[in-house]
Amino acid sequence: MPISDEFAFIQKIIPPNTFQTGLVMGIGDDAALFRTRENTEQIICMDTMVEHVHFKKTTMSPFQIGYKALAVNISDIAAMGGTPLYYLVSIAIPSNWDEQDIYEIYQGMQNLASRFSMDLIGGDTTSTNGGLVITVTVIGEIMKEKHLLRRNARDKDIVFVTGTIGDSAGGLDLLLKNGRNYPYNDNEQFLIHKHQMPVPRVKEGNILAKYERVALNDVSDGLASELYEIAEASGVSIIIEKDKLPLSIPLRQIYQEKAFQYALFGGEDFELVGTCSPIDWENIKRDFEQQKIPIQAIGHVENGPARVFIQEKGSLKILEKKGYNHFKK
Amino acid sequence: MPISDEFAFIQKIIPPNTFQTGLVMGIGDDAALFRTRENTEQIICMDTMVEHVHFKKTTMSPFQIGYKALAVNISDIAAMGGTPLYYLVSIAIPSNWDEQDIYEIYQGMQNLASRFSMDLIGGDTTSTNGGLVITVTVIGEIMKEKHLLRRNARDKDIVFVTGTIGDSAGGLDLLLKNGRNYPYNDNEQFLIHKHQMPVPRVKEGNILAKYERVALNDVSDGLASELYEIAEASGVSIIIEKDKLPLSIPLRQIYQEKAFQYALFGGEDFELVGTCSPIDWENIKRDFEQQKIPIQAIGHVENGPARVFIQEKGSLKILEKKGYNHFKK
Repeated sequence: MPISDEFAFIQKIIPPNTFQTGLVMGIGDDAALFRTRENTEQIICMDTMVEHVHFKKTTMSPFQIGYKALAVNISDIAAMGGTPLYYLVSIAIPSNWDEQDIYEIYQGMQNLASRFSMDLIGGDTTSTNGGLVITVTVIGEIMKEKHLLRRNARDKDIVFVTGTIGDSAGGLDLLLKNGRNYPYNDNEQFLIHKHQMPVPRVKEGNILAKYERVALNDVSDGLASELYEIAEASGVSIIIEKDKLPLSIPLRQIYQEKAFQYALFGGEDFELVGTCSPIDWENIKRDFEQQKIPIQAIGHVENGPARVFIQEKGSLKILEKKGYNHFKK
Repeated sequence: MPISDEFAFIQKIIPPNTFQTGLVMGIGDDAALFRTRENTEQIICMDTMVEHVHFKKTTMSPFQIGYKALAVNISDIAAMGGTPLYYLVSIAIPSNWDEQDIYEIYQGMQNLASRFSMDLIGGDTTSTNGGLVITVTVIGEIMKEKHLLRRNARDKDIVFVTGTIGDSAGGLDLLLKNGRNYPYNDNEQFLIHKHQMPVPRVKEGNILAKYERVALNDVSDGLASELYEIAEASGVSIIIEKDKLPLSIPLRQIYQEKAFQYALFGGEDFELVGTCSPIDWENIKRDFEQQKIPIQAIGHVENGPARVFIQEKGSLKILEKKGYNHFKK
């Protein structure tokens, strides 16, 4: 293993201070201990990023790999409407990564964690003969009964999405062509940054959790795939309008028509996509405007088969149920 | 990836029923949701097992790999005095493992989980170009203030260990020599079983958690290493007596003097080692006797440098602070 002294390394990556008052015992014993607040539910998720499958050394710096491995998980907490509190990290390290690389991975995580006042409370470091494997567990909380599930979509609901979509896939396309040390222009940099360091939509999820019946998902595997999950979990048809998809100016300018492919089938934007009643939509829109956060209505829900349709120039087509495959599978 | 249809595979591994009444939402949304009991603390840990580092196909069946990956984590909960409730599993799968192998890994976990009424509530499956990597997170609970930390050892305390130690290292030695399909005799089978399917000591930890001030660790990296952790966390000297180390008859018969090396420096026994006051020791011994669970006093604690000593034939030696390195590092 590239880490010569595991104990000394762990001392180096323990953050200097903790944020959460519920934390009883973090790193330093067999397991971590925490207390929960009254009238809350705990939210927990676990996601893995694998070298050569989800990233390459040519597409992401160690700092960015750490940042994103945590972001992916925080995004899942956001998609439940919750607030992240703690994280644990397990990392299997190949011999061609050095200790400084691994340290920077943890720095990338700490950078994002401190923005959300999250504490690192455990994990594991091991060696492996293959690509680097990083698994993160995040624990969050939400007030009882306030969580947002995929199965909440109903007839006549509005379908919405936050921010812009497809940018991450565009950024990945550029990175695979030129690597991460190429002199990109501003438009290209914008897309690359969205791929390397996406911001999980915790604030957005918290706003949405104030409403009674919102179905919610984060865009990790592509918009089409996420909409299918909502349609299937709720047993409804979803109809989106191609014209309404929120595409960024850089994505449109660089990719033109291909931008729509990235928006529909490119993953890892970590925006939130969901449905709500038409009445709630007016209030949600106002809440987002007040906070200057972009959100866009892109379609509606109808009773019908659990499928997703896309309207383009007056005609309705079934949207392909394909997801995001990274660059290898 | 060897799994052709991830969705269908996940349906196959979701256990048919759940045990925990606190579970609000398990597998099937962005994250899992659970409620906690009043006056409890939550315990969480995360451990990874890597092919060629922690196991080989020649030493463990897929079922046993799954079983043990969960057991390692349950053992950490036990070492805090707690009770395991939920688990999440992330698995990075190389192309030379087939879907049936992976299914059996999950079966091995479910076998152990159902014994402790634990629910599988999340995780991830990905591919990798290296050896198989399996990471498990376990969440448990304990009544507030009842957790057992390593830093609790004090002058004059009794040092104890449950069960017998060194068996797992003996079993691994046999497996590395002959593989797992060799016609082993009963003594050898005993050791091999202790390596492949150790039972985490949850019941034992629960008994110990009833006492005020117990320091506790699980024997994952070897007795010497675990005792050093207690000595360092508590700032005390620990003195153990070689004659008192609980060695199984199979280990003694097969390995003679080498048995002591395995007992001191061989890991993965998942017995509990700890310290308690002499008064509590009398009661603990009685509790364990009543439940017919083996526990043995092996030494005592003294004020002094944070070191571990071993007494043999009247002379005191510093015990080497070396840990368990599996068969490659």
